[in-house]
Amino acid sequence: MSDGMSQKIIGVKASAGIAIGKAFLLAAPDFHIKMVATSDTAREIKRFEEALEKAKHDLEGIVERVEREMGADHADIFKAHLLVLEDPELLDTVKGKIEQEKVNAESAVSDVAQVFIGLFEQMDDEYMRERAADIRDVTKRIVSHLLGIAFSGPGELTEEVIVVAEDLTPSDTAQLDRRFAKGFVTDIGGRTSHSAIMARSLEIPAVVGTRVITSTVESGVMMILDGDEGIAIIDPTAEELAAYKCKQAEHAGQRTELAKLVHEKTVTADNHHVELAANIGSPNDLAGVLANGAEGVGLFRTEFLYMGRENFPTEEEQFLAYKQVLEQMGEKPVVIRTLDIGGDKQLSYLPMPEEMNPFLGFRAIRLCLDNQELFRTQLRALLRASVYGNLKIMFPMIATLEEFRQAKQILEEEKKGLQEKGVAVSDRYEAGIMIEIPAAAMMADQFAREVDFFSIGTNDLIQYTMAADRMNERVSYLYQPYHPAVLRLIYNVIKAAHANGKWVGMCGEMAGDSIAIPILLGFGLDEFSMSAGSILPARQQVSRLSLEEVTKHTEAILSMSTSEQVEAFVKSVLDKKDI
Amino acid sequence: MSDGMSQKIIGVKASAGIAIGKAFLLAAPDFHIKMVATSDTAREIKRFEEALEKAKHDLEGIVERVEREMGADHADIFKAHLLVLEDPELLDTVKGKIEQEKVNAESAVSDVAQVFIGLFEQMDDEYMRERAADIRDVTKRIVSHLLGIAFSGPGELTEEVIVVAEDLTPSDTAQLDRRFAKGFVTDIGGRTSHSAIMARSLEIPAVVGTRVITSTVESGVMMILDGDEGIAIIDPTAEELAAYKCKQAEHAGQRTELAKLVHEKTVTADNHHVELAANIGSPNDLAGVLANGAEGVGLFRTEFLYMGRENFPTEEEQFLAYKQVLEQMGEKPVVIRTLDIGGDKQLSYLPMPEEMNPFLGFRAIRLCLDNQELFRTQLRALLRASVYGNLKIMFPMIATLEEFRQAKQILEEEKKGLQEKGVAVSDRYEAGIMIEIPAAAMMADQFAREVDFFSIGTNDLIQYTMAADRMNERVSYLYQPYHPAVLRLIYNVIKAAHANGKWVGMCGEMAGDSIAIPILLGFGLDEFSMSAGSILPARQQVSRLSLEEVTKHTEAILSMSTSEQVEAFVKSVLDKKDI
Repeated sequence: MSDGMSQKIIGVKASAGIAIGKAFLLAAPDFHIKMVATSDTAREIKRFEEALEKAKHDLEGIVERVEREMGADHADIFKAHLLVLEDPELLDTVKGKIEQEKVNAESAVSDVAQVFIGLFEQMDDEYMRERAADIRDVTKRIVSHLLGIAFSGPGELTEEVIVVAEDLTPSDTAQLDRRFAKGFVTDIGGRTSHSAIMARSLEIPAVVGTRVITSTVESGVMMILDGDEGIAIIDPTAEELAAYKCKQAEHAGQRTELAKLVHEKTVTADNHHVELAANIGSPNDLAGVLANGAEGVGLFRTEFLYMGRENFPTEEEQFLAYKQVLEQMGEKPVVIRTLDIGGDKQLSYLPMPEEMNPFLGFRAIRLCLDNQELFRTQLRALLRASVYGNLKIMFPMIATLEEFRQAKQILEEEKKGLQEKGVAVSDRYEAGIMIEIPAAAMMADQFAREVDFFSIGTNDLIQYTMAADRMNERVSYLYQPYHPAVLRLIYNVIKAAHANGKWVGMCGEMAGDSIAIPILLGFGLDEFSMSAGSILPARQQVSRLSLEEVTKHTEAILSMSTSEQVEAFVKSVLDKKDI
Repeated sequence: MSDGMSQKIIGVKASAGIAIGKAFLLAAPDFHIKMVATSDTAREIKRFEEALEKAKHDLEGIVERVEREMGADHADIFKAHLLVLEDPELLDTVKGKIEQEKVNAESAVSDVAQVFIGLFEQMDDEYMRERAADIRDVTKRIVSHLLGIAFSGPGELTEEVIVVAEDLTPSDTAQLDRRFAKGFVTDIGGRTSHSAIMARSLEIPAVVGTRVITSTVESGVMMILDGDEGIAIIDPTAEELAAYKCKQAEHAGQRTELAKLVHEKTVTADNHHVELAANIGSPNDLAGVLANGAEGVGLFRTEFLYMGRENFPTEEEQFLAYKQVLEQMGEKPVVIRTLDIGGDKQLSYLPMPEEMNPFLGFRAIRLCLDNQELFRTQLRALLRASVYGNLKIMFPMIATLEEFRQAKQILEEEKKGLQEKGVAVSDRYEAGIMIEIPAAAMMADQFAREVDFFSIGTNDLIQYTMAADRMNERVSYLYQPYHPAVLRLIYNVIKAAHANGKWVGMCGEMAGDSIAIPILLGFGLDEFSMSAGSILPARQQVSRLSLEEVTKHTEAILSMSTSEQVEAFVKSVLDKKDI
């Protein structure tokens, strides 16, 4: 507690909530790796192998401890690390480099790791980024043994703290022990960066992108983290501490209120129903989805099936995963997106040339239509699973009608093939598209005649509409979900769908955003799909809104000229959210 | 001449016209460069310096020969190569690499060149790509001397041939001696690749992107190149030769017809005037622009002023360049675009972090608003030049109204500052924006109240709307100028501008495209800006079209669902172009 002035650091609201505790500075050990030419390559290979053994030993210990203390789920990431340690592609490349280039082991490990990490690092997909982070963590661990420097991760906390870091990799975030890590604050990252998404799913307060936090605070200093406002207060005054403790208590009360909504339907104050669904990345996410009262799965990303392995998943493996999700969700709709890989998302067993602009590249449906065996296998698995629930098949990155027609045709062919073999296929599955490319949004009237549904993928739609890579910090200010250009496109899509009797969902971050919800409700959006943790607050917000009232303002919003204007209007007029 | 069957190779129409001649295979010498570790770095540095001297000697000889045979202009590129040979950044990096990494000279040159080339190579700007090509050519020349392998460029032709190459770099294209190189055909590239643009500006027939031409034809074999249809015929029959000689004669006749239009206005058959302007990259392009009867400059890219130098151009240097263009164009409008650098276009003296998706990155107005001294210097130069002609200042990559307002405000401040110092500034210059981001096209109604004009930059607008990098061959099929989504955006922009009494130009490749011209005329486009060589054919095409008729079909076109449908419709109904 400070007698004098506290210091406020402003960042990006990444995850709501208040945390109070001492700062714990997660300093990345600074490895200065020198390339040293050597003729004794056998010795370097031996050093490398010894370091591998030590890293393996570390990890086995961590797996055991985490399983015991936090449960088996939390140990998965370290098991993945153990697999990386055995990945022949990685190990052979390092050994080859030592032998051919006659360099020391740490330099070979570091160089090879950079190549692998570079492929995954900035990917717009959490599973892929986790893979990059796995390699980063594991190679750091190996290098630390080569250099004889101690390596410590965020999993090794022993008291309640607020974690302060330059950045948190997905595995750093996954390793945060929630008993001790009460929140985190970072120098870099934005609202949609991976650590922010993870924080919301772990439901711990987080502020990211402060730029200066690691250079401002020291370990052990008292801090308040206000995830609601995106503020970190260093060395708070007694008044501040009292006020924030009060806020914390309010939060706890709200959580109790929200818990009452788990089994309720989502209806507006004037009794209009909308569906609140969840985005998931693997069947493991279903427990959280159901615990948070989701009325469906609005986006099941299937990339996880293809990741962290040496070859394509078989039809049977995929079938079992899809069946599991459909069965667990029962009559609730499940939107499964076909493979969205390529561009910045690589598979080690599907070599692709590097691209200058992967976000504008060869990915998703573009790649699937060009690799039909891959695509047909997935479609057969989906069709076979269709009898176990309420399946909606969704094609990603559709830009032209020809693409949808071709995908639909292939789906029909596979359905016919299965039926001819006597395999049961449901009559009621739907086939729709993700609207995430401006061209598709502009042409929604034409698409609406042929698809069963749309789901608006705002993360990509916004970045293409604004021509700004949201992962690029220098232009991320242009990633404006409330920009009227984006809203006009969304409105256009919803009107076109409804004119053709089709439903429209949204599965980007925006669907769970409290400023966007009243606007989208007024536009007539049918389904909102979000991270599980956002569902109950959204349900509460919707219950306080009147459809009639929000609809009244649609025209005014669509004729506004800036994002700022829209946001101010919603806050002053439409926002009935009180949490 | 063949007695049997000829062979047809299909590629992309890059530049119209017919060429007949023997194939000349421009084989890139295949340099196998091995990295060799060495302790005698002094020897390697000496070898490098000797190779530099030899390369310099070569180039001085070429400059002299080209100046004598082809004129001083054509020698500029080799003078640029001589400058590269003296670039301390390049030379010091190579020497540093030899010393620190203890490697042989050829490997150091090659590695360093790759880094420099990588920065420039795929840039969507011909001046930047020329710089990459310069470095490539020069380092090839140095390496050839290091390896003792003879190096020959396309400038060394001695008889009439059709040049066959895997690809042509900008400098390859520039070196083509038009007395001997009657056309060229390549394996890679698309309609908007640099070599294609150069071919149109040099007015030689070209077919690109055949994928197979270098592996199909041998030097000395007779060929016909049909740039109108994008076909290369290898070993043609007597009938084919006769037919194509006849076509060649027709082309010559058409050129005579077109020449009559140089001093005509551009009017439709029903007497509606539109402006045909030219895109230029430097004041040197003006002679060609005026010779082709341009009614204005629709896009003056100012990047050339910033390139191939060690520091920012001064206000005075810029002022003189702008003044020169404005004076030479007299009363004709000149649209000057403020600096569009950043993202994939780098300046050696303005270091910027590498970006994952440079086309969605920190460039153009985004960079200028963040580097105000740079921006203000350019604006002062423009304002001072404004009294010498009919100036329109255009801001590139505008996504939001805030950006335009900020740019306009800075312009006003600089105007006021100049006036306070007694410097004359014109009262009639205009300030407008490029529409190349979907958000701006969607918000044209809002922008139209505040800007003086729009110019639609279709190259970028199409790639953002379709989310497809047009430089990426795997997705370039999605670069569809006639896609209804693109056309709807363009129509939206034109209607919004006219509703507010503002004019609209277009400065992308599409403005000179014979399928697009009738559509755009029907939409009401006011100004078409294209490469100088397209102006006369476009003027002829417009003279044969009736505004009333093309306008009639606008609604039908806007309700079409695919690019293919639009193209077929225009060809069957609207296309009165007969060349």
